[in-house]
Amino acid sequence: MTLYLVGLGLYDAKDITLRGLEAVKSCDTIYLEHYTSILAQDKESLEKLYEKEVQIASRDMVEKEAEEKLILPAKEKNVALLIVGDVFGATTHTDLLVRAKEAGVNVEVIFNASILNAIGIVGLELYKYGKTTSIVFPDDNWLPETPYEVIKNNKSLGLHTLCLLDIKVAEPTKEDLIRQARGEQVTAAPPRYMTVNQGLAVLKQIEEKRQDGIITDDMQVIGVARLGQPDYVIKSGTLKEILEFDFGSPLHCLIIPGKLHHIEEEALL
Amino acid sequence: MTLYLVGLGLYDAKDITLRGLEAVKSCDTIYLEHYTSILAQDKESLEKLYEKEVQIASRDMVEKEAEEKLILPAKEKNVALLIVGDVFGATTHTDLLVRAKEAGVNVEVIFNASILNAIGIVGLELYKYGKTTSIVFPDDNWLPETPYEVIKNNKSLGLHTLCLLDIKVAEPTKEDLIRQARGEQVTAAPPRYMTVNQGLAVLKQIEEKRQDGIITDDMQVIGVARLGQPDYVIKSGTLKEILEFDFGSPLHCLIIPGKLHHIEEEALL
Repeated sequence: MTLYLVGLGLYDAKDITLRGLEAVKSCDTIYLEHYTSILAQDKESLEKLYEKEVQIASRDMVEKEAEEKLILPAKEKNVALLIVGDVFGATTHTDLLVRAKEAGVNVEVIFNASILNAIGIVGLELYKYGKTTSIVFPDDNWLPETPYEVIKNNKSLGLHTLCLLDIKVAEPTKEDLIRQARGEQVTAAPPRYMTVNQGLAVLKQIEEKRQDGIITDDMQVIGVARLGQPDYVIKSGTLKEILEFDFGSPLHCLIIPGKLHHIEEEALL
Repeated sequence: MTLYLVGLGLYDAKDITLRGLEAVKSCDTIYLEHYTSILAQDKESLEKLYEKEVQIASRDMVEKEAEEKLILPAKEKNVALLIVGDVFGATTHTDLLVRAKEAGVNVEVIFNASILNAIGIVGLELYKYGKTTSIVFPDDNWLPETPYEVIKNNKSLGLHTLCLLDIKVAEPTKEDLIRQARGEQVTAAPPRYMTVNQGLAVLKQIEEKRQDGIITDDMQVIGVARLGQPDYVIKSGTLKEILEFDFGSPLHCLIIPGKLHHIEEEALL
């Protein structure tokens, strides 16, 4: 009996591997981790392909009820946790793997593409990226400067920086919780996805504060939208130009190039 | 008509995605890039799965005859280039993508897992890796110090370093070429794959020269073998311990950790 951690890839149901599909079809219980997924990998299309029932698992469940819902059941039967992209995009899944192994459960990981390798399509060498960073939505009291620091360090070494952009899943307000406790239906606010434009605006905001000259209007940046999907967009230009460009629907991400090789420059044209 | 660049994933024929399989089955001409592949993705097993003929393409062909063999034919019919791992592990494929687009050919990339994301299974956070480096076989006159430099920079930022290990495909000697010109059969020497132990020995050799105290016998290192295969091995310990450990058959890689989070430490136990 096995706990399968299955990466689903970047777009729709057809991005699973044959190995993954075989594993899922052998499972009695199948969970789809529903957290940041806005992809075409909805429960219905997966169920149709697998000819099996798929249950939605919140990230909260994967973190807090792993023992009861995933690890212990995998001692008796095959259980799959389906994860959009690749399995190890989130620390949660490493933690799950460690705990399952400690509990003596057989775990099999089915790898798939993630943004960390698919970003290669942009044309910059994957081995010339430094640390990856995340830009988060700031609020009135909070403007995390980590991405600025990471870009600065990477640039000083001539390396490119991949900036992942924030996804804000609305948390229920206190009022929502009270209404929920009363048994009323509460509709959660839709999640917010940071755009390339918003990401650049945040970087400019940090630059204003830090004044190290790392982020300038005429520096070259690359915006990417819907990587792995048929209508993906890659657009390179000066920060000023890209700040105005409409990349369409999410997910977006952003690259701040380091030193460009001439083949890389050509690929960006 | 389309040129498909199809990632095959890390182990055998079943690691292709459903999207990839569908694409390949629609192709009139299918090339398998045979370069560093020592995986179970041999021509025969792929042909059996695809029910199509697969031709072997040397890296040399992909670089020098791309126009004639891949780009121009893709104007008339569907052509696939199958690539072990993910598509953008090598600059060659970026170059191919750029040239095909310039020639007005429709290109579709089918992503898959690569070592860059699958390494997440080790338990270190993917977002805490700095630049990736490669350790190559030194010879009497040549000991490239780049990996040492990369590890030093990454460590100074608290970041982990993934070290890819050299694969030496034997080049024909002058004598071989003469014999070949005479029409004699020349058997190429088998390729050499650097082991974790050899990789560590090279790092120690560079340390002896540089003396910056970056590589020490009691530092923690992680050796990885056959990532993505059923019999994969991950072993962490001091450099001295790992230097003696037998990881078995290739491919191997090596991680020099930066600052470890307690969850990461736990995952390595």
